[in-house]
Amino acid sequence: MTKEREKLNLIDTDIHERVSYEELLPYLENPWKRYITDCHWIQEKRMPYTQPAVAGVDRADARVPDGRPAGSDLGFMQKQLLDDVGHEFGILTGALDPSPSSMHGWYEMASALARAYNNWQIENWLEKDDRLYGSVHICANDVTEAVKEIERVGPHPKMVQVLLPIDDFMWGDPYYHPIYEAAQRHDLVIGMHHNEPPLYYGKWPRYFIEWHTLLPTSHMMQVTNMVFNGVFEKFPKLKLLMIEGGFTHMPHLMRKMDQQYKDLRHEVPWIKRMPSDIVREHIKFTTQPLEEMSKREFMQLIEQMGSEDLVCFSTDYPHWDYDSPFAALPPNLDEGLRRKIFSENARALYPKLPQSKGGN
Amino acid sequence: MTKEREKLNLIDTDIHERVSYEELLPYLENPWKRYITDCHWIQEKRMPYTQPAVAGVDRADARVPDGRPAGSDLGFMQKQLLDDVGHEFGILTGALDPSPSSMHGWYEMASALARAYNNWQIENWLEKDDRLYGSVHICANDVTEAVKEIERVGPHPKMVQVLLPIDDFMWGDPYYHPIYEAAQRHDLVIGMHHNEPPLYYGKWPRYFIEWHTLLPTSHMMQVTNMVFNGVFEKFPKLKLLMIEGGFTHMPHLMRKMDQQYKDLRHEVPWIKRMPSDIVREHIKFTTQPLEEMSKREFMQLIEQMGSEDLVCFSTDYPHWDYDSPFAALPPNLDEGLRRKIFSENARALYPKLPQSKGGN
Repeated sequence: MTKEREKLNLIDTDIHERVSYEELLPYLENPWKRYITDCHWIQEKRMPYTQPAVAGVDRADARVPDGRPAGSDLGFMQKQLLDDVGHEFGILTGALDPSPSSMHGWYEMASALARAYNNWQIENWLEKDDRLYGSVHICANDVTEAVKEIERVGPHPKMVQVLLPIDDFMWGDPYYHPIYEAAQRHDLVIGMHHNEPPLYYGKWPRYFIEWHTLLPTSHMMQVTNMVFNGVFEKFPKLKLLMIEGGFTHMPHLMRKMDQQYKDLRHEVPWIKRMPSDIVREHIKFTTQPLEEMSKREFMQLIEQMGSEDLVCFSTDYPHWDYDSPFAALPPNLDEGLRRKIFSENARALYPKLPQSKGGN
Repeated sequence: MTKEREKLNLIDTDIHERVSYEELLPYLENPWKRYITDCHWIQEKRMPYTQPAVAGVDRADARVPDGRPAGSDLGFMQKQLLDDVGHEFGILTGALDPSPSSMHGWYEMASALARAYNNWQIENWLEKDDRLYGSVHICANDVTEAVKEIERVGPHPKMVQVLLPIDDFMWGDPYYHPIYEAAQRHDLVIGMHHNEPPLYYGKWPRYFIEWHTLLPTSHMMQVTNMVFNGVFEKFPKLKLLMIEGGFTHMPHLMRKMDQQYKDLRHEVPWIKRMPSDIVREHIKFTTQPLEEMSKREFMQLIEQMGSEDLVCFSTDYPHWDYDSPFAALPPNLDEGLRRKIFSENARALYPKLPQSKGGN
């Protein structure tokens, strides 16, 4: 510890552990393993941009001292993040870029990679640090295999959510509902994280700054799609966490969905409540990347969402735009609200997390 | 006049006059005319939904008494809208569904239809009511023809803007900049109106209510694209009006663009100011469809945008979700702000409108 400062007892809802395809090899069955070792398999490459920062998508100081990329080493992450901040718990959200979960072909390979990833994650992270909880990775394009994988690793006591890539899916579509049925049955949250969606009507904008500015629109689309397609009417215990999109777009979207529901509810008669009530009951949002704001402005947004219970702090470690829990929230927030954002909202979201602080 | 109430001296920034393809025939040259009369030409059909209301996209009571669709008759619109509300001015934004401006093939036909539309609009509307001002329609896919059309009808004293369809274009792309050069040269505003963009990454959501809820995301994309592509640095006198998307998404987007600019401005070094400053100087927003809000909530949004000068009232007559200027704004807004929203912000936007109330 380099500084004298209080520990935060944070529940961090977005930490990216990282693995290379090469490191996954021991966890991968043949023929998939052989495609990588012998057949020059090349992963899907999508984003047509340079990297946003000097260390790519990562904090330069998060590179492992032995030269491996940021997020690759548990010991280094423990020291730099968990011990330094004082994490009570952290939820791992993965990083294998681009993720097999949104591969646009060869779903069999994607499913095999997801299985290998989950095994690697459990062995090297979840079972080695009591503070870390994990996400079940799946192949989004193969629902049958996805459900099998949820059945296989979902019961693990350290697995708390199923991670779905936003990409260009429409997650409210009934085609995907078996995933929600399985998640609900295993007390798993659905975590949704963008995975390089091609914004602008399926096309790439010209600059990374445009793409990154507009990421919340992809989150808006998924929330709207999930709500109006009746996912939360069909799976009344299901909870959704929207990861790495922030929350400052939600006052607008909640107001807009309510207004549209007043005007057009004849089209979706299975929706029996105001959309903003559905959001408040079923969906939460991670903070990062949090815009700089005054307390006044921040509290206006909380007021407009009609609840203090929807926002969960996330650092997004080790990404370039990491939010420090010591600096990201506006100064002088009330202590009760800070505690909700730093831990209690996440604890209420994840039924598999120890429910009273300190564990019991 | 059926009610005793004060007139509003409104400048209405979104009124849809309507024409059928058949009515356009006398304004259309051959061979284009013949394609419609003799060759079974079928317009592009895009939206895979039923209509939102009993009269389609229109107010049922706006149907012309002789049976023609809402918005087809000047006399009826004068009575039902302009005289009743007390319009000082109204900006026509057109309705020929789907609009030729975003035809995905056969740009020559689209350009011919746009020319015919502009001639029809001038003859039947702009030159018959002093209160009405018009929009130059163009074929968005043929920039050369679009510029020619702006040169041809842009100088008309009642033409105040060039209307661009949002559709699936990226309007910040340098390919389109000749349109902005021509608009700036003729003191024309750029009006941007969605024209059935296929949201969800280029795909259609399952329900109209989803599509309609998410329309502001298409406006967010265009604002982001226009700002970061440097359009307003290149054309410093250019003004943009975002039509029929509302404004309640803008506090989020302005804050988000600023934050991203702080982090990533090395990628767009031609941008010399904070994006929110660019928005405040160059872009305004029409109100409709305005969500029901308290004065407190409305004023928070105005405060978060950092200006009272960005919002212009629009009725969207004769659409099904028409906003009445007597009911849409929150009660008890300060008189100065009401006056800005009802007329002064629009007057400041359009240099070709008479600049002191009552004309001179």
